[in-house]
Amino acid sequence: GPGRVDLVGGGPGDPGLLTTRARRLLAQADVVVHDTLAPTSVLDELDPDVELVDVGKTAGHHPVPQHEINLFLVEHARRGRRVVRLKGGDPFVLGRGGEELLACREAGVTVAVTPGVTSAVSVPAALGIPVTHRGVSRSFTVLSAHEDLRAGQVPTEGTLVLLMGVSGLAATADRLVALGWSATTPAAVLEDGFGERQRRVVGTLADIAGRAEQAGVRPPGIVVVGEVVALAPAMQPDPVVL
Amino acid sequence: GPGRVDLVGGGPGDPGLLTTRARRLLAQADVVVHDTLAPTSVLDELDPDVELVDVGKTAGHHPVPQHEINLFLVEHARRGRRVVRLKGGDPFVLGRGGEELLACREAGVTVAVTPGVTSAVSVPAALGIPVTHRGVSRSFTVLSAHEDLRAGQVPTEGTLVLLMGVSGLAATADRLVALGWSATTPAAVLEDGFGERQRRVVGTLADIAGRAEQAGVRPPGIVVVGEVVALAPAMQPDPVVL
Repeated sequence: GPGRVDLVGGGPGDPGLLTTRARRLLAQADVVVHDTLAPTSVLDELDPDVELVDVGKTAGHHPVPQHEINLFLVEHARRGRRVVRLKGGDPFVLGRGGEELLACREAGVTVAVTPGVTSAVSVPAALGIPVTHRGVSRSFTVLSAHEDLRAGQVPTEGTLVLLMGVSGLAATADRLVALGWSATTPAAVLEDGFGERQRRVVGTLADIAGRAEQAGVRPPGIVVVGEVVALAPAMQPDPVVL
Repeated sequence: GPGRVDLVGGGPGDPGLLTTRARRLLAQADVVVHDTLAPTSVLDELDPDVELVDVGKTAGHHPVPQHEINLFLVEHARRGRRVVRLKGGDPFVLGRGGEELLACREAGVTVAVTPGVTSAVSVPAALGIPVTHRGVSRSFTVLSAHEDLRAGQVPTEGTLVLLMGVSGLAATADRLVALGWSATTPAAVLEDGFGERQRRVVGTLADIAGRAEQAGVRPPGIVVVGEVVALAPAMQPDPVVL
């Protein structure tokens, strides 16, 4: 059949949080292009003749530039292959899925998006933090901690979820206080998503950076800011039993 | 074995966007408590002896009050049953999952959360709207259109996703302009999620309410506000082929 590209949300790293469509598309793929945040354990289950291409960041190595990834997707689809671009979380949540979709479209390559479970909601949930909760927060904002936070971009109520929030945490916390958040607002750093180093460090905007440093928190990590963080001890879920 | 409650995100209504864990928990359930936004087609595949309880809103009927749902979950788990509380989207995205979790916890019932694909991201994606896109929007805010929108809650940049946005759309659009959004900002109403009436009506904050009324848009629906809406014609995905 003709080649195609599927941009597939791989969820937050827990294989059980892949969608059934993601599983089926992976099982039918000729090539899987993935990065480090994708749930790579599922790749071990694929047929040995499926080509796996890692375009993610690795320590000391630069990631593959986006335009090269786009080119790779297009070229392989044009050769009649079924290409799955497996991404951590959801392709459209700060995942550059839109750029890849447009590159395929402009090249005349069939492309579709399969949404995934976003880390912005599921990693907090795994550590007892609901991004919304009646009487506490009725909204949440997801943004990258890697950019200059502007007043118009950052609400001062509800919940903030800052992806890539570990490096530069002190500056981020200071900036939020400058933008109107109280320094006593509960804040949490959630380390390593659903990975082996998964843990929660809790404090306030005033002290979260110091607490995270003291605990030795390393990327990747998500920062949550808002009163919902204070619910974590009561909300910490019991383990799933299958 | 002992009873338990699993709060399970059912995703936006497309059965392919259920997680594999959700499928497994459903297959093992004694009772499934669902509402109208949950992907009810998957319930048809369950064993006939699984008890199905619909607590959702139906036309002309009131939904089951939350405290009665909480009580039901607790009572059935106490009788040793495996209870799945299947919710549309994600349990913690304006889904009252936190209340149910706390009710179980307070009653001493084992409870866990299985995150789902949130409608706030996946319904826009299905209609060609990425909630973030490089150079266009680096953040998004999810809120309920059913409450009074306050300045501190609503950023004036990035993307807004308003759940339950169809009724009261004119007032919502006016309010956003009063809060600082330009009346020329692109806005879309996305009707009926992944359902049969799925469609997109596009305009600006100035005219979206009139356009939606003219098109006869009915709930349920999600409203997206921001420059990403203008990407929809180019982004409209090709269909998934399995």
